[in-house]
Amino acid sequence: MEATGTDRDRDRSKATAEDRDVSGHAARWADPVRAITFSDAVFAIIITLLALDLIPPEWEPGHLLRELIGRWPTYVAYLASYLVVGVVWTNHRAVFHHVRRMDWTLQWANLGVVFGTGLLPFPTAVVADAIGAGNPADERTAVALYAVIGTLTTLSWLLLFHYLSGHPELLKHDDDGPFFASERVRAVFGAAGYIGAGVLGALVSPLLALAIFVLLPIFYGLTSERLAGVLGSKRGT
Amino acid sequence: MEATGTDRDRDRSKATAEDRDVSGHAARWADPVRAITFSDAVFAIIITLLALDLIPPEWEPGHLLRELIGRWPTYVAYLASYLVVGVVWTNHRAVFHHVRRMDWTLQWANLGVVFGTGLLPFPTAVVADAIGAGNPADERTAVALYAVIGTLTTLSWLLLFHYLSGHPELLKHDDDGPFFASERVRAVFGAAGYIGAGVLGALVSPLLALAIFVLLPIFYGLTSERLAGVLGSKRGT
Amino acid sequence: MEATGTDRDRDRSKATAEDRDVSGHAARWADPVRAITFSDAVFAIIITLLALDLIPPEWEPGHLLRELIGRWPTYVAYLASYLVVGVVWTNHRAVFHHVRRMDWTLQWANLGVVFGTGLLPFPTAVVADAIGAGNPADERTAVALYAVIGTLTTLSWLLLFHYLSGHPELLKHDDDGPFFASERVRAVFGAAGYIGAGVLGALVSPLLALAIFVLLPIFYGLTSERLAGVLGSKRGT
Amino acid sequence: MEATGTDRDRDRSKATAEDRDVSGHAARWADPVRAITFSDAVFAIIITLLALDLIPPEWEPGHLLRELIGRWPTYVAYLASYLVVGVVWTNHRAVFHHVRRMDWTLQWANLGVVFGTGLLPFPTAVVADAIGAGNPADERTAVALYAVIGTLTTLSWLLLFHYLSGHPELLKHDDDGPFFASERVRAVFGAAGYIGAGVLGALVSPLLALAIFVLLPIFYGLTSERLAGVLGSKRGT
Repeated sequence: MEATGTDRDRDRSKATAEDRDVSGHAARWADPVRAITFSDAVFAIIITLLALDLIPPEWEPGHLLRELIGRWPTYVAYLASYLVVGVVWTNHRAVFHHVRRMDWTLQWANLGVVFGTGLLPFPTAVVADAIGAGNPADERTAVALYAVIGTLTTLSWLLLFHYLSGHPELLKHDDDGPFFASERVRAVFGAAGYIGAGVLGALVSPLLALAIFVLLPIFYGLTSERLAGVLGSKRGT
Repeated sequence: MEATGTDRDRDRSKATAEDRDVSGHAARWADPVRAITFSDAVFAIIITLLALDLIPPEWEPGHLLRELIGRWPTYVAYLASYLVVGVVWTNHRAVFHHVRRMDWTLQWANLGVVFGTGLLPFPTAVVADAIGAGNPADERTAVALYAVIGTLTTLSWLLLFHYLSGHPELLKHDDDGPFFASERVRAVFGAAGYIGAGVLGALVSPLLALAIFVLLPIFYGLTSERLAGVLGSKRGT
Repeated sequence: MEATGTDRDRDRSKATAEDRDVSGHAARWADPVRAITFSDAVFAIIITLLALDLIPPEWEPGHLLRELIGRWPTYVAYLASYLVVGVVWTNHRAVFHHVRRMDWTLQWANLGVVFGTGLLPFPTAVVADAIGAGNPADERTAVALYAVIGTLTTLSWLLLFHYLSGHPELLKHDDDGPFFASERVRAVFGAAGYIGAGVLGALVSPLLALAIFVLLPIFYGLTSERLAGVLGSKRGT
Repeated sequence: MEATGTDRDRDRSKATAEDRDVSGHAARWADPVRAITFSDAVFAIIITLLALDLIPPEWEPGHLLRELIGRWPTYVAYLASYLVVGVVWTNHRAVFHHVRRMDWTLQWANLGVVFGTGLLPFPTAVVADAIGAGNPADERTAVALYAVIGTLTTLSWLLLFHYLSGHPELLKHDDDGPFFASERVRAVFGAAGYIGAGVLGALVSPLLALAIFVLLPIFYGLTSERLAGVLGSKRGT
């Protein structure tokens, strides 16, 4: 708490001055509220649609239990994707906490992140089906598809971070720029993680890739918050 | 109404003081609004997706009525799950009414509750299918699955109550801690109810378990509100 | 515009006094905002899920056009249900505009309205399938199902209106009670309309019933607003 | 920034005066917030439901990759529809930024736009299926269906623009009327674009029509914002 009423006061007075500047017309247009609500709704729908893959299996009388147990890859894939969307939502919340104004590029960069996240149930279902069926070539294909779409999603975040790090006028605080510059590095590592998992899945074992797909978002969920905490405490939060 | 402007004033001045303390940056990050909106959206989607199991049956010409009547377990399961989500939503509303700030653990505890609730349509559909098909072993399996997931959901609430009862700094009022401690007891009873229903379903009759599944949320919906009312009236509400 | 700053001032001062009375704790618990958001989300999902019945037909090469045209009952059913949900949403908006506080009964009465509305896609799909298949007995069954669920939905509104007409302490204005008393009458007529359509569908022609199902919400959409306008203008609006 | 505190002040004082005029009762009824939230939720659901067409294909062991690649028309159709909904959302946001009050007609005009947008996944799926199957007559039918529904959607916007251009009392600024008059022209061109694409698809090549379907929303997304920017800057934004 040692830091710096002055800093925060400067931030706030800066915000107030500019907001007054664009009052009436543009202030509301630039307001990120509607973009946040929209993204939240999409994430909520995605997280719920994932559960649509959990449907009663076909079964012969007396064998429901065996059928339910045999579908474990579906449950693992569901859990993995739920964690991913949970992390995406937490991350999105952390990022837009720093955003004061939207512009056209930021809006479409955000729609890109939402697009990438919305693709996730597709490779999730393909992986669950392929691992259940057990053909090695198909398992590799499914894992590669998941890796490609995971990489694309990470790149959409990279784009968002990159744009925000270069446009401090859209941010609330003067020192938010470096935050997004460092987030960029994390996004690159995330993309490398998905590519690496895809390669390991093709060369070594699809199950190894599946394990990395589950662990990657957990790692991101844990460290992202920590980073935010460190940055926050430096600012007297 | 005898109670205690003083209490409430203290609560409010406490809140104001701390809010000012974390103003600017962290206050909005910690704001539960986005978590509430997100949870509401998921509950709304779940409650609506449950209706997706209500689809036109296949029927031979002239036998639509018989087919519609024959699918009564689907309707009972739908009603039961609708009541559960209604109670979950009412409960979630009551809990987050006490929450002033979010932190990382609370966020994921909430995502856990949402996860548990999102699983519900799956065992609902399995139970409806199995009871319609009529094989006793499968009926027991389906009822057990419902009991397991019902227990898991209750445990996610237990975790949330436990964490909140030990972190008064996240709550609005000094005396909200005991509220969550007592809610914890109710969650344990709820878990016991689902486990008991599962055991009764396996040993006695799946239909008995089904009846308990319908009655449990009704009991919770009725008593939860009463409890909130009692606590509220003590506070001059 | 002749009416009555005094009236409105009294309304507002009444509201302020009571709100202060229940400040801090209960005021937010009783706030209808979260119930409104939740209902809006459900209506939005229902209106969109209706479109899920619009799926590409199976067709033999070269006969897509014929198949698309042959599915006209699906399009009519979709349009009818869309109008119903549109009217329900408009109505819900008009009703909750008068509500100042929620209590336990109002909350579950609202969940009842949402439940009734959420059932609508089911009889819609059954009607579309049955009229497409062309067996008279099944058409009658389908139309009767739609009439039963339409009646149930109307009765859930009746319950809501009845409760609000008897609990002025939940309303914003002293003269909102009579509004809900008169709305009750309209709900009874609506139920009669659905029952009548079901009887005509069974005795005369299912297509006649289908036409009434489409016309009923149009009639309600048109007159509900008119009524609100008349009441509004008497109040200087 | 040279323009015109005076203009903006006039706008604002106008708004304040009228809002006070309809205070208490009608102000909140006329508030566009709930209509905006509702539309946002529907757009979010549509954009996510589009992804439901991305399901794991049926495949023979070892041929998953070939099956995935063979379904490229589904991916193109998904991308096109995502772009359309993205543009619709951006457009809706820009339009309702100018709206100060709702009335009955505006409400149903908005429900018309939402209805048109909600139809989009249907022709999207039909086009994807037909182009995958490869029968020329069916491809033409599918493309024509997409063109018809695209035109309908554009006409729903035309209706909305037309109504707003003639009702300045619903708008925030005195000079918003001409904005909507010019938007009307753009909507007419959009309808012409969809009709033209349908004709070209029937006479020349369905793939050419598909390309226009993808390019139309991109063109609209780019120019709509530009126009808003030009108008905004003239107003000192």
